[in-house]
Amino acid sequence: MTNKTNTKLYQLNKAMIGVVVALGLGTTMVSSVTQAADTISLEEAEAIQRKLVTLDTHLDTPAHLVRPGFDIMERHTYGHDFSQVDVPRMQEGALDGGFWVLYTPQGPLTTEGYQQSRDTALLRALAVRTMVTEHPETFALALEPDDASEIKKAGKHIVYMSMENSYPLGTDMSLLETFYKFGLRMAGPVHFKNNQLGDSSTDPEGVKWGGLSPLGETFVSEANRLGIVLDGSHAHDETVKDMIKLSKTPIILSHTGVKAIYDHPRNIDDDLLKQLAESGGVIQMNAYSDYLTALPENPERKEAYKGLMAMVKQGADHKDLLEKRREIEHEHPAVKASFDVYMKHFLHALEIVGPKHVGIGADWDGGGGVDDMMDVVNLPMITQRLLEEGYTKEDLADIWSGNALRLLKQAQGYAASLKSASK
Amino acid sequence: MTNKTNTKLYQLNKAMIGVVVALGLGTTMVSSVTQAADTISLEEAEAIQRKLVTLDTHLDTPAHLVRPGFDIMERHTYGHDFSQVDVPRMQEGALDGGFWVLYTPQGPLTTEGYQQSRDTALLRALAVRTMVTEHPETFALALEPDDASEIKKAGKHIVYMSMENSYPLGTDMSLLETFYKFGLRMAGPVHFKNNQLGDSSTDPEGVKWGGLSPLGETFVSEANRLGIVLDGSHAHDETVKDMIKLSKTPIILSHTGVKAIYDHPRNIDDDLLKQLAESGGVIQMNAYSDYLTALPENPERKEAYKGLMAMVKQGADHKDLLEKRREIEHEHPAVKASFDVYMKHFLHALEIVGPKHVGIGADWDGGGGVDDMMDVVNLPMITQRLLEEGYTKEDLADIWSGNALRLLKQAQGYAASLKSASK
Repeated sequence: MTNKTNTKLYQLNKAMIGVVVALGLGTTMVSSVTQAADTISLEEAEAIQRKLVTLDTHLDTPAHLVRPGFDIMERHTYGHDFSQVDVPRMQEGALDGGFWVLYTPQGPLTTEGYQQSRDTALLRALAVRTMVTEHPETFALALEPDDASEIKKAGKHIVYMSMENSYPLGTDMSLLETFYKFGLRMAGPVHFKNNQLGDSSTDPEGVKWGGLSPLGETFVSEANRLGIVLDGSHAHDETVKDMIKLSKTPIILSHTGVKAIYDHPRNIDDDLLKQLAESGGVIQMNAYSDYLTALPENPERKEAYKGLMAMVKQGADHKDLLEKRREIEHEHPAVKASFDVYMKHFLHALEIVGPKHVGIGADWDGGGGVDDMMDVVNLPMITQRLLEEGYTKEDLADIWSGNALRLLKQAQGYAASLKSASK
Repeated sequence: MTNKTNTKLYQLNKAMIGVVVALGLGTTMVSSVTQAADTISLEEAEAIQRKLVTLDTHLDTPAHLVRPGFDIMERHTYGHDFSQVDVPRMQEGALDGGFWVLYTPQGPLTTEGYQQSRDTALLRALAVRTMVTEHPETFALALEPDDASEIKKAGKHIVYMSMENSYPLGTDMSLLETFYKFGLRMAGPVHFKNNQLGDSSTDPEGVKWGGLSPLGETFVSEANRLGIVLDGSHAHDETVKDMIKLSKTPIILSHTGVKAIYDHPRNIDDDLLKQLAESGGVIQMNAYSDYLTALPENPERKEAYKGLMAMVKQGADHKDLLEKRREIEHEHPAVKASFDVYMKHFLHALEIVGPKHVGIGADWDGGGGVDDMMDVVNLPMITQRLLEEGYTKEDLADIWSGNALRLLKQAQGYAASLKSASK
């Protein structure tokens, strides 16, 4: 099996480098893997990254698009409005685009809940489409795997659309086609809690379905029929396993970490990681600090945030909320995981399954961010580190987009095969 | 009742003019109604029209928006591509905007039929929104009644959104709110055939429900709750009566004619017209030739069009279809109703219910058009004729938009009252 072989070759390759370095022959030998692997400057890394198609598979930025006054064309700062992605910063950080997320929080599994979230998600899709239409020289909607490189060539940013939490589909899986027609090309069944489609990795009430629900199985086959990449991030391990088993094409974990570095339900263990890779799937490394390492408790900060949440519920003005949040962040600053811890997750995944099965989905604008990388500006640090670790430009091309797009190609290929078979 | 009083005063006024003219005192006396009423030039009429907010309540133009190559900013001709509305022609014809229609043809009353049409209608809404977003200096989305004059002041074209045939809602009336959130402000239950919501005026199988269906009653109350103007065009007379009876705010017939001039199911008789006006409703005069007068049979043309329809079914290219249609129109030219017949419908409605209950909805890009007025360029002919007939500038302001917007104001006012009552 090619995937397996790749992985093993890689492990061997990396192991050999280890031996070589241990023998004091590092500098000479490693340069045969990449040029001056241990002394890549950030500028060099950035220059290399700029030549690649770079996609983050989980940009929660569309949540900002529906906020009055937010302008994706303006440069924002995390310190001021806690946003992490905009056009100037994408350009600075050499990020071409990604999968722009239609996110809906989990609500009650009722007719009304389904209807409200359906509308929210449809309007979010409209917001993404509107962003693209408003700035035709800056963005282009991507629907096919090849669109990414074409859009980059045209000097524009790449906008694939994905859905985090398919709760908005309610019990009507035909809505997945509606979203497909709006441009959706990736979808995950659940978010923080179990829903009608299956079990979440973080529901405090534990497992409900033991993986996918019967409706979740229909969701998987509908996604396959349409050519939508299935996303197992936030899904319970058993749900992920069901998805791997049932899906006709490999699945993605659009923003997930590894349990080997930090044992958190939002991360997967090496067995599942291997199973994912063996089935052709890909893990995209999440930079959500709380899932990367055990962070010190900060009860005062927690309490202060409860106050903020109360303001949200009372329908406080967005400006007042920002002001309050800045105040909290000043008085009780967040402790974030280090960039190094992020890379530990990243390098472990690479170690276990190789660069054909790892990519980047840092959860920007959805909670992602680590020390020294709190927005997309410093993304070349990842490239720098991977080059220093001996990964090649070809590996980086896979990691930065090739792997995710391979899955989309497989998904679309399967859907096309169904269509031609039914003719 | 104000409406009734207005109507009666008007009838009296018009009757007096008749007497005056008969006595040979026309010129002097009529000038007291409007200045030089019988000698308005088209240029004068156009100048007057340009000062008014002018809306057509049934622009089927969004059907063109989803056709590859159609550019709303370019000047088209009816002779070349059979389109009737674009920005240059709107400007020439002094048409500020209107209700841009999400039209879906009637399909089977099945789950699949509902799903397909739901998607079609949602994508049509996206197309309208995209048109507005693509041309922010030219168009603006209108949601409130006051938006129309604001948009005109800003020098832009007015885009309200309406739905012809609410078949796409299927059996899930909550979808009406989805469309409302996309911008929908007017909706009619049916098109050519009976559907899940009620009876059409033109179903060859006759009446099925005897008016609105039970689901159609829910449709009416949902529209009321949301503040959507109900549109009885295409609805069977009994359906219209049910809508008048059930709706909490007056209904519109967005593109309809009068049976008194031509007895066709798409027209209404004087009794229903009076009932409509007494309930505060408005009829918008349709320029669909086949509904205006008995046109000569043209079996060869009919046969040729059957061939065209066969091409459509075979999935022929749009360009080839246009070519074929031009060929048919050349060989078997359509016979259209005259502009004068159109105005007979118009003036009859005005005669019966007065200028507070009549407006313009000519079915552009949906089959509308009469001799000398085959697109929106010659709309000032209507203004000219109405001025010549003695209608005042104030009447024209009502006819050209005031009446339709009054209905929207009432619809929105009722919805707002429900919201404040539930607080």
